[in-house]
Amino acid sequence: MQLGMIGLGRMGANIVRRIVADGHTAVGCERRAQHIEELGAELGDGFQGSTDLAEFVRMLETPRVVWVMIPAGATSAVIDQVAELLEPGDIVIDGGNSRYHEDIARAERLRPKGIHYVDVGTSGGVFGRTRGYCLMIGGEAEQVKYLDPLLRSIAPGLAAAERTPGRTGEPSTAELGYLHCGPAGAGHFVKMVHNGIEYGAMAAYAEGLNILHKANYGAEHAGEFSAEEAPLEHPEYYRYDIDVPEVTEVWRRGSVVASWLLDLTAAALHADPDLESYSGRVSDSGEGRWTIDAAIDTGVPVPVLSSALFARFSSRGEALYADKVLSAMRKAFGGHDELPGT
Amino acid sequence: MQLGMIGLGRMGANIVRRIVADGHTAVGCERRAQHIEELGAELGDGFQGSTDLAEFVRMLETPRVVWVMIPAGATSAVIDQVAELLEPGDIVIDGGNSRYHEDIARAERLRPKGIHYVDVGTSGGVFGRTRGYCLMIGGEAEQVKYLDPLLRSIAPGLAAAERTPGRTGEPSTAELGYLHCGPAGAGHFVKMVHNGIEYGAMAAYAEGLNILHKANYGAEHAGEFSAEEAPLEHPEYYRYDIDVPEVTEVWRRGSVVASWLLDLTAAALHADPDLESYSGRVSDSGEGRWTIDAAIDTGVPVPVLSSALFARFSSRGEALYADKVLSAMRKAFGGHDELPGT
Amino acid sequence: MQLGMIGLGRMGANIVRRIVADGHTAVGCERRAQHIEELGAELGDGFQGSTDLAEFVRMLETPRVVWVMIPAGATSAVIDQVAELLEPGDIVIDGGNSRYHEDIARAERLRPKGIHYVDVGTSGGVFGRTRGYCLMIGGEAEQVKYLDPLLRSIAPGLAAAERTPGRTGEPSTAELGYLHCGPAGAGHFVKMVHNGIEYGAMAAYAEGLNILHKANYGAEHAGEFSAEEAPLEHPEYYRYDIDVPEVTEVWRRGSVVASWLLDLTAAALHADPDLESYSGRVSDSGEGRWTIDAAIDTGVPVPVLSSALFARFSSRGEALYADKVLSAMRKAFGGHDELPGT
Amino acid sequence: MQLGMIGLGRMGANIVRRIVADGHTAVGCERRAQHIEELGAELGDGFQGSTDLAEFVRMLETPRVVWVMIPAGATSAVIDQVAELLEPGDIVIDGGNSRYHEDIARAERLRPKGIHYVDVGTSGGVFGRTRGYCLMIGGEAEQVKYLDPLLRSIAPGLAAAERTPGRTGEPSTAELGYLHCGPAGAGHFVKMVHNGIEYGAMAAYAEGLNILHKANYGAEHAGEFSAEEAPLEHPEYYRYDIDVPEVTEVWRRGSVVASWLLDLTAAALHADPDLESYSGRVSDSGEGRWTIDAAIDTGVPVPVLSSALFARFSSRGEALYADKVLSAMRKAFGGHDELPGT
Repeated sequence: MQLGMIGLGRMGANIVRRIVADGHTAVGCERRAQHIEELGAELGDGFQGSTDLAEFVRMLETPRVVWVMIPAGATSAVIDQVAELLEPGDIVIDGGNSRYHEDIARAERLRPKGIHYVDVGTSGGVFGRTRGYCLMIGGEAEQVKYLDPLLRSIAPGLAAAERTPGRTGEPSTAELGYLHCGPAGAGHFVKMVHNGIEYGAMAAYAEGLNILHKANYGAEHAGEFSAEEAPLEHPEYYRYDIDVPEVTEVWRRGSVVASWLLDLTAAALHADPDLESYSGRVSDSGEGRWTIDAAIDTGVPVPVLSSALFARFSSRGEALYADKVLSAMRKAFGGHDELPGT
Repeated sequence: MQLGMIGLGRMGANIVRRIVADGHTAVGCERRAQHIEELGAELGDGFQGSTDLAEFVRMLETPRVVWVMIPAGATSAVIDQVAELLEPGDIVIDGGNSRYHEDIARAERLRPKGIHYVDVGTSGGVFGRTRGYCLMIGGEAEQVKYLDPLLRSIAPGLAAAERTPGRTGEPSTAELGYLHCGPAGAGHFVKMVHNGIEYGAMAAYAEGLNILHKANYGAEHAGEFSAEEAPLEHPEYYRYDIDVPEVTEVWRRGSVVASWLLDLTAAALHADPDLESYSGRVSDSGEGRWTIDAAIDTGVPVPVLSSALFARFSSRGEALYADKVLSAMRKAFGGHDELPGT
Repeated sequence: MQLGMIGLGRMGANIVRRIVADGHTAVGCERRAQHIEELGAELGDGFQGSTDLAEFVRMLETPRVVWVMIPAGATSAVIDQVAELLEPGDIVIDGGNSRYHEDIARAERLRPKGIHYVDVGTSGGVFGRTRGYCLMIGGEAEQVKYLDPLLRSIAPGLAAAERTPGRTGEPSTAELGYLHCGPAGAGHFVKMVHNGIEYGAMAAYAEGLNILHKANYGAEHAGEFSAEEAPLEHPEYYRYDIDVPEVTEVWRRGSVVASWLLDLTAAALHADPDLESYSGRVSDSGEGRWTIDAAIDTGVPVPVLSSALFARFSSRGEALYADKVLSAMRKAFGGHDELPGT
Repeated sequence: MQLGMIGLGRMGANIVRRIVADGHTAVGCERRAQHIEELGAELGDGFQGSTDLAEFVRMLETPRVVWVMIPAGATSAVIDQVAELLEPGDIVIDGGNSRYHEDIARAERLRPKGIHYVDVGTSGGVFGRTRGYCLMIGGEAEQVKYLDPLLRSIAPGLAAAERTPGRTGEPSTAELGYLHCGPAGAGHFVKMVHNGIEYGAMAAYAEGLNILHKANYGAEHAGEFSAEEAPLEHPEYYRYDIDVPEVTEVWRRGSVVASWLLDLTAAALHADPDLESYSGRVSDSGEGRWTIDAAIDTGVPVPVLSSALFARFSSRGEALYADKVLSAMRKAFGGHDELPGT
């Protein structure tokens, strides 16, 4: 089967690599000619490409399958552009990180032209090439079924995890690592919630490790506390000099909190035990925010996921004005002067 | 009636002032002789004092009423010291910010000596002298009743607030601003929860004002967003240059969020509209922490009070290690480099 | 000056009462003829009305001032209807609880017709008639200035609170209880954040009182704990039978947490000390949700305000599915059977 | 090497099974004779036991290694009892879920007798027998080293996870699944934080799945909203009928949130897709609470971990009084009657 891929950055190129390795062919479209040449040299007959969108479209067999894998901000424009060149029956896939609202709008825009729209939430990051990508898919059932051979090649496959007890016989596609979640937008909706969970789980580890990091507080602060914090009632309970990197390693085997995120954390802490290469300003892409928006719209309590998001905002200094208000109030009612930073 | 006061700092001196102004007499004990002299010059016959604890005790009529108003860390030692000089039937009061656990222990230590222990949680801050102090009291009913004339003079009195609808006839002491809450420790327990609520309410205002502070974000960031934050989908919704000090002022009259804390905030923002005199490192004394401890012990969900406490911790940089862990994870799975601070 | 009021429900009628009492006149429009008759009987010459929108408009002096005070869901349609009958220079005011996004859209729709749009966030609830309403206003400066006499009559006035220290001379309108906050939508934006703060402050009190409510847990659970909760390490610390209604009363005078919300809470607890008339399903209108949406859009951390919102969702059973997931996980890894409810 | 095990419940018996399978021998002590007989029949020569504590001690080679694996509430008493029968140089291990404060106290009580104390936080639940147990260990270095052969047999071993990139050569014990974390109490301290993280991560999944569960809200509530909730502005965005069990399955392969907890969740949802066998009252053992206590003591912000804990409290109805306070406030200021439950 043939896949057209617009965007040969890391993700796009790796998806192409996986499907070509699995016997399919790919046609690429990418401004930077060098990317096309290099991938062609690497993949041989299975791959060809063009820097020109119209030529790219002409190189595709019909019905055309065009996967767009470019930064979210540029996706809508490119989809509209390529749609001008496509014919009824062709399929456009957005594999990036669009908000699912946009998927709904795009599907409606393309429908009158007879062009089918499929959104694929793609998880896996830099490890996806070898590990495979977890694919969450929205669109019409018939088109998703048509794409099955490609999706199967991109996804990790059954062997990537032990089979869930009770699941026997022919595996569902979910067991192979891809799932048709519903109509247009459903893929990015599920991916959005996935990322919301990711934020929460990441924060759970980070907060816990911070407690371990500070477990020697009683030894370090023997009786000397600044006026800005309450004195420690039982310093004898906080005299542990914990090796945090080793703790993340030991939890990887046999514990309840074993996870892929923990694997990565253990690797990061092994490489940089004091995390000296990080300043602690934590970015957030849109998904964590949109997850909270969706929860609020539908009345779902998400205190953990939202706390995780807000901690990222705070890490970037966004609580500063609020903190100043607190200091101003304390000064007003208690005459407390704020203490200088250390 | 006569009150013995150990500690003539701001709070102790102001309490003495209120009771002497109401026709009682006071005896003070304070290391710094100058404080005693000055208060004597101000209050005349109603006040005498000594820098010597034993002499102070001798100056008191029996049964002696000894109010200790010194920093929480020094209170237990002074109570034990003065208890050596007291007689059965005397009363020791801790009006400071002790944890209520200590009240329970002190009452037990003093009981065999026949000395009565009363704890008084005292709220009012720098305004208490003129506004009166809200008193939350723990101890034996008989002794609290005995102290009634003094407590009544220290408290704000009925006129300090409009009477609650449905309350008629002889006012309860709660309506006068003081309340016997239960046995030893009950006063500081209620004061502790009071402060826990204070943290939560303060944070509610601070967070809300932060949103107003940032309401012009769309105008200020016309299309330029750093890669570390999600772009704003609707910049047209955030084009308000709100005068935050004036907003706090307008809310003081007729709104649902009118409060004494808001009065103070409006005053602070009028004096320093951009809060330039504050760095935003927010201290916490013990009460906010102990409130959460009590909630956890008794299984009470307190997401708001705890969030307020943790925001103070974060304002002092205590989330830094956790934030670095998050950055390390993001780099590991997504290859995201952390962005430099601005 | 003359005010046209569409909607003579409680809020609309009370605003009419306030302005007529202050020497202005009012024209009302309301489907229910009886409301018009009764208000006419009460207010005499100062008030007239009609059940017919066109007639209502004809009764107004130009430039017409039309205040719409009806449920948020119906407001946009009525504004569009009345706009058909108005002339350039007339002013339409939405005093209800619209989302500020709608204000922006309405102002744009009315602008080509030369009709001015003003949004007024109105706080005060059932007490507004006597206490006055706190008014947060969005719109063009000239029109807001034109409306000044009416706004001044609706607002509480300077005497409603002690003057903020440092504010002298001619009071600002904020000190009178009304404030022009910015262009269209600014009034509802500030009102929205006001309500967000309200949610947070309410939750702070509610959580704190819940701790007091459970302060006798140690006495009540002497040694008997169900397997579903951790046993209490120090039951001796939780033996207080706190009179919660009296505590809310004592805090009204002299304490840091004195507020109008506390006044109301004390009144409610005096009337129903065990809160037996409430089931604890807490509603939320839109403002609390929109506040969090705005915070997320602009990257402002609001852990307290969001926790307050989510607690309301949970009070209505919306956490149930998540809780079942937790029970299922616990059973899976620990073999823990869920315990039956009590 | 020989291990003495007091308590042959599921955990104790499974640990014995693992070490005997690895060539060690075990002596058991257990009130229920049948447990001893059955384990003897199963394990043959490698195992013997007694219902009598003194006889059990006599059966042990010196220096004796006594692992106590009984409910946390009974552990201290049994340790004191067995200590009476031990000799200098013997080692007592608590492998249960004690609070680490108790470990510190026990180590101090045993020290004068020359008996060594080791605490082992043991994670793995019902799967530990085959998967191995993750062991977090506190105590003196010499004794932990002495126990190494036993610990190695109980732990999962290197093969249980892929090796962390950068770790080469002779594996550390952490890579085998056990870690000496520090002096007495350090094992249970790290296990406590492990469980705190577990609560947070579990809640992250639960909240996210709840959003998916409600993703069809727009279709289900076409225009009909109760007055207790804000109407949905965009029902067209919530028309997804998501198959939650399949989503948890697809995330197991290739996604960022793949984890053991997710494996269990997928299994639980496969077995009971609508979670009908759960009521949603979620228990908490002590560790989650103690984690928050430790964070508060040391000033570490833990908004996610605490939110997870409080959600469990709320699931058991513990927010009810607070919710009633909120309803009472709403009624007081807004005249809002509370709506009946559905």
